[in-house]
Amino acid sequence: MNAPLQAETLRREIPAACLQSLQALLGDRLSVAAAVREHHGRDESPYPAMLPDAVVFAESTEEVAAVAKLCNSHGVPIIPYGAGSSLEGHLLAVQGGVSIDLSRMNAVLAVNPEDLTATVQAGVTRKQLNEAVRDTGLFFPIDPGADASLGGMAATRASGTNAVRYGTMRENVMSLTVVTADGRVVRTAGRARKSSAGYDLTRIFVGSEGTLGIITEVTVRLYPQPEAVSAAVCNFPTLDDAVRSVIEIIQMGVQVARVEFMDAAAVRAVNLHSKLNLRESPLLLFEFHGSPSGVQEQAETVQAITAEHGGMDFDWAERPEDRSRLWTARHNAYFAGLQLRPGCRASTTDVCVPISRLADCVRETVDDLDRASFPYTIVGHVGDGNFHVQMLLDPDSQSEWQESEAISHRLVERAISADGTCTGEHGVGLHKMQFMEREHGAEALALMRSLKHAFDPNNILNPGKIIAW
Amino acid sequence: MNAPLQAETLRREIPAACLQSLQALLGDRLSVAAAVREHHGRDESPYPAMLPDAVVFAESTEEVAAVAKLCNSHGVPIIPYGAGSSLEGHLLAVQGGVSIDLSRMNAVLAVNPEDLTATVQAGVTRKQLNEAVRDTGLFFPIDPGADASLGGMAATRASGTNAVRYGTMRENVMSLTVVTADGRVVRTAGRARKSSAGYDLTRIFVGSEGTLGIITEVTVRLYPQPEAVSAAVCNFPTLDDAVRSVIEIIQMGVQVARVEFMDAAAVRAVNLHSKLNLRESPLLLFEFHGSPSGVQEQAETVQAITAEHGGMDFDWAERPEDRSRLWTARHNAYFAGLQLRPGCRASTTDVCVPISRLADCVRETVDDLDRASFPYTIVGHVGDGNFHVQMLLDPDSQSEWQESEAISHRLVERAISADGTCTGEHGVGLHKMQFMEREHGAEALALMRSLKHAFDPNNILNPGKIIAW
Repeated sequence: MNAPLQAETLRREIPAACLQSLQALLGDRLSVAAAVREHHGRDESPYPAMLPDAVVFAESTEEVAAVAKLCNSHGVPIIPYGAGSSLEGHLLAVQGGVSIDLSRMNAVLAVNPEDLTATVQAGVTRKQLNEAVRDTGLFFPIDPGADASLGGMAATRASGTNAVRYGTMRENVMSLTVVTADGRVVRTAGRARKSSAGYDLTRIFVGSEGTLGIITEVTVRLYPQPEAVSAAVCNFPTLDDAVRSVIEIIQMGVQVARVEFMDAAAVRAVNLHSKLNLRESPLLLFEFHGSPSGVQEQAETVQAITAEHGGMDFDWAERPEDRSRLWTARHNAYFAGLQLRPGCRASTTDVCVPISRLADCVRETVDDLDRASFPYTIVGHVGDGNFHVQMLLDPDSQSEWQESEAISHRLVERAISADGTCTGEHGVGLHKMQFMEREHGAEALALMRSLKHAFDPNNILNPGKIIAW
Repeated sequence: MNAPLQAETLRREIPAACLQSLQALLGDRLSVAAAVREHHGRDESPYPAMLPDAVVFAESTEEVAAVAKLCNSHGVPIIPYGAGSSLEGHLLAVQGGVSIDLSRMNAVLAVNPEDLTATVQAGVTRKQLNEAVRDTGLFFPIDPGADASLGGMAATRASGTNAVRYGTMRENVMSLTVVTADGRVVRTAGRARKSSAGYDLTRIFVGSEGTLGIITEVTVRLYPQPEAVSAAVCNFPTLDDAVRSVIEIIQMGVQVARVEFMDAAAVRAVNLHSKLNLRESPLLLFEFHGSPSGVQEQAETVQAITAEHGGMDFDWAERPEDRSRLWTARHNAYFAGLQLRPGCRASTTDVCVPISRLADCVRETVDDLDRASFPYTIVGHVGDGNFHVQMLLDPDSQSEWQESEAISHRLVERAISADGTCTGEHGVGLHKMQFMEREHGAEALALMRSLKHAFDPNNILNPGKIIAW
């Protein structure tokens, strides 16, 4: 599959003097080896790799600042690299330059259990952070699936299955240390839970995908590990019944920790993959966090509401092993989907709409997908109105890629018409740039561009991503 | 009391041609009457009024855009005006210009109960919004005390007593319509609950105090009215015991809706004012939202934890009339404080620190205040680490003002040293500008300034506020 690049692909020449200075600075932590560049010129998107000219492995904020100063003075692009798990071409070196790998900056710098905060270097992954704080009785909830780095999660404004309860990186990053294009070091905020002291630099950098600054440290909020956790699963005759249930559950004030949707095809896929016998109709999976009596009460309320909307086969469990049995379907959905078509490669969409528009948006998308020449599944973070279509494509078929892109375009158009967004959690990267003007309008895009020009006047920070220069 | 202005006070001349064009645009909704200008040249801060040259009463986003275009072409300042309830000199026309009163833009444009959102014009007040959504079973939680306009609350990143549960305007504004300095109209986001589609324009304008754009419409999140509400009150031997209790309560995962602190002086003031017999020692007031059994469980957990920390006289109530009895003290604290010194004017601080540093910060502040020549009280949003010292000053005494400013400086220094902020919820305006470099550092301030320059190149948007040009 040859996903065409719609970005600026003007490759700049990296001056020998710049490379020499980087070498002097970093020694053998500078690499120009093809395999290393290849590894850093791709992500989990369907795009073919576009290699940086060099890769540096930074070990401190000061080193990142020194690299930025050097590259800025030579007009050489810098692409921050964390765990490599982004999905939209964020990491491709479309203009060449230096990939700055932050994975060695993996120290947990501070855990403050009384304040429910932790400060980590950008290369720390979410699983590593949760290991580090486990003994405090706290946890970091954001879970995008991949074991992404905290810096990368902040940079893409990531979220995942429990955003409905705990929010996204937007709500959970308290402060960042950022290196600017010209190598200054900025801390965006203190650790107070709230502040009205001037412009919100933290949230300017959250979601900026390395185009406004290089995130080197992240302070995040932690949450008490829930005293009790329970899970429930329920089938519905139609998607609409499932969505109606979720709307009512949320309006009732039930604080579900997760509520995930799977379409019949996704259920069929996991039945095949994991030898389950789930009813092959739209399915909701719930998770509840709270006190033992609280989670029981939540489950009872949810059962009553789902029953009013045609819910079937309601099942719930409190013991960890029973909970994982119920959630097997969701955990295996992605790989089960892939196995519906052996050898395929998936292209995944990421629209998010107001929940009142979700059922219509999914239904119209299903009508469109049912005319496609390839199979697909749908899963969704239904409490947020965010859903992913997994289109299972022949990697050698250019026509399937084009067909999937056309479906994706129509889906994005549908989502934006419903006052939604082209990307709920994956970010823009290269792949969603084409939708930015449609979503935001020319005037908003002009403001974004003026921000980019102000923060990165030489266009060295991950150039060619989010918005065209 | 003559609070000296430390801002740029370069008054610009408003060209006659600009005034004539505004008159042609707005007719009798342009006023240059002294009384109208006087009313719009002040806020609830201790500063004397600084009058705008003219006041316009806008009735639509298009009118605001036309005014901005005109003023921008003439280099004339614009100061957005909502309910006039800001506290730090935000509204003073330090460089003259046009106050643009948005209070007539008071339409509730849309309520979407299924999505838990409402969209209002900027002049709608929080009480008006809550009236408008009452029948939906939803409410808008942010309560800064004053019946502020939603536009003003967004512009100052306001919060209040229940931010510990529901967050601040930062978390609760979903989208804004903003008029830029040169009169373009931008909508900052759709209504999806989350998005990773580019720079976070919404949060760039939240907290920008009219210096980056003029907010004309606000889309906010709503919440289900809690099925049950209960309240509790508890005294402690020391502040430290009270704060330790709150830290433990939050770490246990009890989702208190409000938890307010009052010092012994504040309790004494309300005892005098409202003929109560509360023990005159540090006091915590709680409010719980949830199901009937949930709020009972929360109150029991809180009682157990407070008992371990020397809590005394624990009292709790579920019926509305009993709840208001418990909360009388907090509701009357501000005016009761004022009556400790008849004829005084209050100067109020607003620092916010990580909760682990709160007890030390308050204790050191009390030591400082106890040497002052005027009385004071302290109340605080203790779950957020935000507290207000109410210093009761002789309005005719310049020396008391200077003394209070010196105390305020030391308090801010203490808060920033504790990784906190000079303002948790009141904003910067004029009064806190002096602390911005100390809090953020020169490099972060330079980034903020470059943002201001990019969005408002002629410096017409509330000039002389937040940061010096």
